[in-house]
Amino acid sequence: MLGKIALEEAWAIPENFKAYDVSSLAPKGVIGGDLIANLLDVHGTRLEQMDENGVEMMVLSLSSPGPQGVTDAREAEALASLANERLESEVGRNPTRFAALASLSLHDPAQAGRELRRCITERKGFVGAIVNDFQSAGPDRNTMLFLDRPECDAFWRVAEELDVPVYVHPREATPLIYEQMWKDRPWLAFSALGYAHRVGMHVLGIVTAGVLDRFPGLKIVIGHMGEHIPYDLYRIDHKLNRARFPQMPMAKDKLVRDYFGTQLFITTSGHFSTPALLCALQEIGAGAIMFSIDYPFESIPNGCVWFDDHVPINGRDLVDIGRNNALREAPHPLQYK
Amino acid sequence: MLGKIALEEAWAIPENFKAYDVSSLAPKGVIGGDLIANLLDVHGTRLEQMDENGVEMMVLSLSSPGPQGVTDAREAEALASLANERLESEVGRNPTRFAALASLSLHDPAQAGRELRRCITERKGFVGAIVNDFQSAGPDRNTMLFLDRPECDAFWRVAEELDVPVYVHPREATPLIYEQMWKDRPWLAFSALGYAHRVGMHVLGIVTAGVLDRFPGLKIVIGHMGEHIPYDLYRIDHKLNRARFPQMPMAKDKLVRDYFGTQLFITTSGHFSTPALLCALQEIGAGAIMFSIDYPFESIPNGCVWFDDHVPINGRDLVDIGRNNALREAPHPLQYK
Amino acid sequence: MLGKIALEEAWAIPENFKAYDVSSLAPKGVIGGDLIANLLDVHGTRLEQMDENGVEMMVLSLSSPGPQGVTDAREAEALASLANERLESEVGRNPTRFAALASLSLHDPAQAGRELRRCITERKGFVGAIVNDFQSAGPDRNTMLFLDRPECDAFWRVAEELDVPVYVHPREATPLIYEQMWKDRPWLAFSALGYAHRVGMHVLGIVTAGVLDRFPGLKIVIGHMGEHIPYDLYRIDHKLNRARFPQMPMAKDKLVRDYFGTQLFITTSGHFSTPALLCALQEIGAGAIMFSIDYPFESIPNGCVWFDDHVPINGRDLVDIGRNNALREAPHPLQYK
Amino acid sequence: MLGKIALEEAWAIPENFKAYDVSSLAPKGVIGGDLIANLLDVHGTRLEQMDENGVEMMVLSLSSPGPQGVTDAREAEALASLANERLESEVGRNPTRFAALASLSLHDPAQAGRELRRCITERKGFVGAIVNDFQSAGPDRNTMLFLDRPECDAFWRVAEELDVPVYVHPREATPLIYEQMWKDRPWLAFSALGYAHRVGMHVLGIVTAGVLDRFPGLKIVIGHMGEHIPYDLYRIDHKLNRARFPQMPMAKDKLVRDYFGTQLFITTSGHFSTPALLCALQEIGAGAIMFSIDYPFESIPNGCVWFDDHVPINGRDLVDIGRNNALREAPHPLQYK
Repeated sequence: MLGKIALEEAWAIPENFKAYDVSSLAPKGVIGGDLIANLLDVHGTRLEQMDENGVEMMVLSLSSPGPQGVTDAREAEALASLANERLESEVGRNPTRFAALASLSLHDPAQAGRELRRCITERKGFVGAIVNDFQSAGPDRNTMLFLDRPECDAFWRVAEELDVPVYVHPREATPLIYEQMWKDRPWLAFSALGYAHRVGMHVLGIVTAGVLDRFPGLKIVIGHMGEHIPYDLYRIDHKLNRARFPQMPMAKDKLVRDYFGTQLFITTSGHFSTPALLCALQEIGAGAIMFSIDYPFESIPNGCVWFDDHVPINGRDLVDIGRNNALREAPHPLQYK
Repeated sequence: MLGKIALEEAWAIPENFKAYDVSSLAPKGVIGGDLIANLLDVHGTRLEQMDENGVEMMVLSLSSPGPQGVTDAREAEALASLANERLESEVGRNPTRFAALASLSLHDPAQAGRELRRCITERKGFVGAIVNDFQSAGPDRNTMLFLDRPECDAFWRVAEELDVPVYVHPREATPLIYEQMWKDRPWLAFSALGYAHRVGMHVLGIVTAGVLDRFPGLKIVIGHMGEHIPYDLYRIDHKLNRARFPQMPMAKDKLVRDYFGTQLFITTSGHFSTPALLCALQEIGAGAIMFSIDYPFESIPNGCVWFDDHVPINGRDLVDIGRNNALREAPHPLQYK
Repeated sequence: MLGKIALEEAWAIPENFKAYDVSSLAPKGVIGGDLIANLLDVHGTRLEQMDENGVEMMVLSLSSPGPQGVTDAREAEALASLANERLESEVGRNPTRFAALASLSLHDPAQAGRELRRCITERKGFVGAIVNDFQSAGPDRNTMLFLDRPECDAFWRVAEELDVPVYVHPREATPLIYEQMWKDRPWLAFSALGYAHRVGMHVLGIVTAGVLDRFPGLKIVIGHMGEHIPYDLYRIDHKLNRARFPQMPMAKDKLVRDYFGTQLFITTSGHFSTPALLCALQEIGAGAIMFSIDYPFESIPNGCVWFDDHVPINGRDLVDIGRNNALREAPHPLQYK
Repeated sequence: MLGKIALEEAWAIPENFKAYDVSSLAPKGVIGGDLIANLLDVHGTRLEQMDENGVEMMVLSLSSPGPQGVTDAREAEALASLANERLESEVGRNPTRFAALASLSLHDPAQAGRELRRCITERKGFVGAIVNDFQSAGPDRNTMLFLDRPECDAFWRVAEELDVPVYVHPREATPLIYEQMWKDRPWLAFSALGYAHRVGMHVLGIVTAGVLDRFPGLKIVIGHMGEHIPYDLYRIDHKLNRARFPQMPMAKDKLVRDYFGTQLFITTSGHFSTPALLCALQEIGAGAIMFSIDYPFESIPNGCVWFDDHVPINGRDLVDIGRNNALREAPHPLQYK
């Protein structure tokens, strides 16, 4: 389809590469080009490929882990602020083709709320926020600050009030966990498996902690066809046994599946699988799914050819997934189709 | 359908309860009865419900973690041996309705191979082995011995030679990992999420370590509709990038999906979800799927009503999944349908 | 789900039995009761079973063929008028649980339009019209008057103006066609196959004749999971080759699939098949599908147990199919869920 | 996949064009070339496109209606015999890439059996038979001789004894039926709808007449994703009510669905629809489905790109559908994959 909107699309500033060695993510040439150059680029190759593949808009965000990889609170906040300033400027150069997700430090949730408010109300082009899984902290980088801790309500409250979605994006494990679980099978530690494990746990942690109940207008988006959750929804709800876990804070009269389509959304980023999409359509419905690519870690043509030509669903659901759901949940002046 | 065979069905001996407090898994009454009594029972309530629900045979195994929860090698081996002796006796009382998976200590893989050989060639009623994820070791229970370590080839060789499947079953996390990741959301630590994370990583670790290539006759079975793997097969294979991970030992010309149906199998245990089953059917095919219940952690009628009445597939695939695949991969004198 | 609305539900008056021998449709006892008694009943067994099975509302219509089976125009019009009068009265006795589709003679499309207008604007409880396939005419009952003939525009114009859907329902073949095609295999002549053949052809005839283009507000509903059309949509559109059939009046820039969800709708009546529903969901989407039973030719519990317990789709789509789509397309004071 | 086998692939001899005007089927250029030239060609463009698209073998048959369109018994038999002689010669020029279905006149079923026996036992390259729906007879071409008439047992007996499948292929309606039903909507009379109606009724007539019960080794193949039958299997079996139709000869203890995969098979010819294929996979299973294209009425690349790139199923089922099922049901020296 023409007019697609893609939500989980990475972009970088040189300062972010201090936080991690992006070249480790994919060797040059492996995914059709120079990863670092493609991360830094907005208006060149990226836009050209958008034009060639029917992508009307990309919602950009600083590449992972961004501020979540910075253990010092001040530095993390400064990186977030710098990235948001630069991204506003990039997006402003072509505001009908690009929008932005705000980067945030999660050391201090109240500060994260202030930074998000500034992006949405004072900066131009921002339609939501992105958090790269847990916030790293501690001298050895082994402390994980999760979004289901009570003090994060200060942040969630702002996101709800501003009515913008928060995208929970993957990142790498802490050194300690990596050493214990992934070191002997590093090829599984990242996008092949570990990413989904960590984000899946984190998001289900947020949901079962009752965050979505306390903030019923809050909307959370996860990528990669839902980080395994749609496939396992029956088992998740079946096993979150309230008799066994009376202390679980989530509303007693709700199932995890009940939040999809109103407060929980998934994207297709990096998982161009028709069987997975059909499973998700059955379990959570077209209203809970949005198209995304995960450029430049994925190829724009691969994602778009799959979506445009191979996805065996009706045009109405296709257009909802490819465009309209994004406009509804992350409002932007573009028109519905 | 009548004549179903169920493969992941737990049974216990009092000695196993030293390894863990089974009552923590589900409060009395929650899943339709007294869990401990149901674990100990074979020929009473269990058989009655099998009769009422068209289950011709249950393949029994010692409840998790079994020997994998015992850090001392001698004690773990003794528990395995004791369990196998008792299980042979139970199964022998009604050999047309029950068969057995051998418990094994994985401290010493060569010893595990010897115990498995003894069960298959000297004991009666055994059709395979079960391993409850990693083997716990170390004074603080925090050492995890995985099956993808090179010395386990000594064990895999025997399983291949005997032509019996190895069922990789979930267990709880180590104290250290639990503390770091699950403590603040314990309801996710077990069957709702953590089990699938750990077994999924472990089994993909085994596959990508090249174990199935070195032992091309070896067969591994995982439960719970494949511990998320079928849903993510596209992404797993797509991201196991050989250019990025040249050191990954798995055969260079194979994808993870290529092993399903010949060396990798899944069961429906504890995940009676039609969307998930349909996704798995598309991704790995009916020949790679086997019916199971996960009694007594799941209700026999729930699992059977779902399979018999709700699964929207043709009779041939249903009978293959419900019975014939198990007879083909874990040979037993019962007849094919 | 509770609150289901069912659209294709038959009811009869003794005068209609002159047109056909309803007892030929199903022997007494075969579908759980006495067919004639169940057709005549509204407020007894029918309502009781609605209560027991979560059906809040049934939209009733005179059982097939109704006026379409009457070859004399005056008699057909009189039967339609009589049926509408009686149905208004029945529905009026319990207007929160029953609504009505208007019966119409199609000998004179302008007269059909007037009768429909009277039902919608002067009578109470009517939410649409029903036409039982072709209108029989001619001395030997072999003339078929179809709704794609140009003079029917006079009728379609009224239906569009009143903004009420027209349900195209099956009926038996003419004597001549029956003799040629079905006589040697009568078991296929009716609901097993012939019904779908005839309605499928008729409705595709209407669509390809450009009726939906000339009346873009017009809405047509067909039962039995779409009379095969969703399964064949690819082939239908692929083979309606405009180069080969330049005289086909349908809009040159549209495919048959484009009308589903805005002008074409299907119901689940009498085809409680999960694979068929999943195929239809992919091809035409949840917005184009409405729940129906086809009582008393089908069992209320069978249809409802299937829909409530076996259909593997998310709750939002389920409620749309089970209720909301009907309220949107055939407006009624009941509230959305 | 490489090595595909396609079963419903048309070929013609000039003498067959007397029976119908093939150019009416598709205007020159519409489906990528000159239809008549492509029907006559075997070793040129056809083979080239097979090479380019991974089709190892085409099973050829005389284009419809062939002998079924010839009302004179002697002429029909002569056309069948001539076509079989010519086809043997064509196939013999490249026997590893082409095989043949025997054309038969069905005026005299015993003669059809003798011609089939001659093709299979005396001619080379034949792997089955094709019948183009009903046999035309009578002076006005309005008599339809169907294969469910009792005297056809003489033919079915031979097909069973020789263990070769009979492909029931569509053809146009009789003049009388065309006049009554299709004349006002001719674009629906052929491949868009009418073909499926006629073959679907014919094949269900054969099945419900008990032919498959009397000849339990007999195998029948239909194209176009099963001529609607898989989508409607629930309703067909549900409505073939034995209490209502006690005279129906089909075995009392069988459903129509029970014959699929052993005696009934479908192909994908001309219906490259993923939702339809997924529905068929659920209802009848991969063992009952075979790849076909319907060249030259369909494009070879279209069919192959769909099957190779778009069909979201596992490799084992894909290879069974694409090749192995054909080798199993219509034996040929090619090797299984």
